[in-house]
Amino acid sequence: MKMQELLKTALNWRYAVKKFDPQKKISAGDWALLKESLRLTPSSYGLQPWKFIVVENPELRKQLREVSWNQSQVTDCSHYVVMSFKEKLDVEFIRKNMDKIAQVRGIPVETLEGFEKAIVSDLVNGPRSLGIEAWAQRQVYIAMGFLLETAALLEVDSTPMEGLDPAAYDTLLNLKGSGWKTVAAVALGYRHPEDPFLKNTKVRFDENEIFELR
Amino acid sequence: MKMQELLKTALNWRYAVKKFDPQKKISAGDWALLKESLRLTPSSYGLQPWKFIVVENPELRKQLREVSWNQSQVTDCSHYVVMSFKEKLDVEFIRKNMDKIAQVRGIPVETLEGFEKAIVSDLVNGPRSLGIEAWAQRQVYIAMGFLLETAALLEVDSTPMEGLDPAAYDTLLNLKGSGWKTVAAVALGYRHPEDPFLKNTKVRFDENEIFELR
Repeated sequence: MKMQELLKTALNWRYAVKKFDPQKKISAGDWALLKESLRLTPSSYGLQPWKFIVVENPELRKQLREVSWNQSQVTDCSHYVVMSFKEKLDVEFIRKNMDKIAQVRGIPVETLEGFEKAIVSDLVNGPRSLGIEAWAQRQVYIAMGFLLETAALLEVDSTPMEGLDPAAYDTLLNLKGSGWKTVAAVALGYRHPEDPFLKNTKVRFDENEIFELR
Repeated sequence: MKMQELLKTALNWRYAVKKFDPQKKISAGDWALLKESLRLTPSSYGLQPWKFIVVENPELRKQLREVSWNQSQVTDCSHYVVMSFKEKLDVEFIRKNMDKIAQVRGIPVETLEGFEKAIVSDLVNGPRSLGIEAWAQRQVYIAMGFLLETAALLEVDSTPMEGLDPAAYDTLLNLKGSGWKTVAAVALGYRHPEDPFLKNTKVRFDENEIFELR
């Protein structure tokens, strides 16, 4: 019962902050947990086709802001996380995943051969390989969901950012040729008391407009 | 401090259930909150390009299972949610959103003209219109993240399902021609004590493998 209330409060408290308080910083403990919620996010086959780039350098933040419709969240938030995805899902990356499973579970990697083959024939050689960029991006968005909900529960504010030039980000972050590409970003920190968006009532479709029964 | 612990526990407790206990059902209160966490999920421009189809009919669940690699979660979970996205982002849907904002905030819809035009020129007529299906699917995956994390915090088990035939789902669910298309599903309920996946150690890359600083 308690958790239901906590969740309800957090989900309603959350909104996409327009103006952050540049003075307020996320505590080390909260930040550790925000990172952990990204790391523990589930993904298809558990492949984790993501990398999260945390931008601290103020000069770099300024440059990123210029290719993010000049939105102030980029420079004024406490922690700015660029969400990137694995551009090409190749056999090497899947092998890296198998090695990790074998290492963590203390089993020979050979026992995972069937699983590995199934993934390769589905995502690397199968019909789903054609939309693999979109597939990887979707996995990153599960992580975005985890990050935003965790933040709300910790009373850390956030703004999911899609209004940015991904190619320009890749250049500024030196991602070109790395195998990773920008898809979005999340600004984290604390709402400014004068954020004009603070007073806006949350707008959502009613339950009966988005749920259907079968 | 308390919330940090609750989150840490929930995120580690969660895993993709392979075998649900078909006898155990989610309570009305928890289900209401799970729906609410979908409804309150943020999306780009707040457009909510999603519809969630809750499949109760056992016969239909059986048919869906047949086009879901015969995975038992489809028939054995308590609540089965098909996640669908808006296939075509048209001017009508954006207008529907504007009407909702005007209604909820009690303002004339005309005051939203600038906002509406900005969205149309970005997503309907702009370069981003080309990848609009993938865009809508990504928004749905934020909702998936919210659903999975909320479930974990409520100690409700879940399995995100990508191993399914979206086109066959669209047919079985009568979505053809509706403007909505299946992208994935989430099974919700309670783990069976004999779920073979229950004993698996969670496998994730280490922090330094997925985070980079700039």
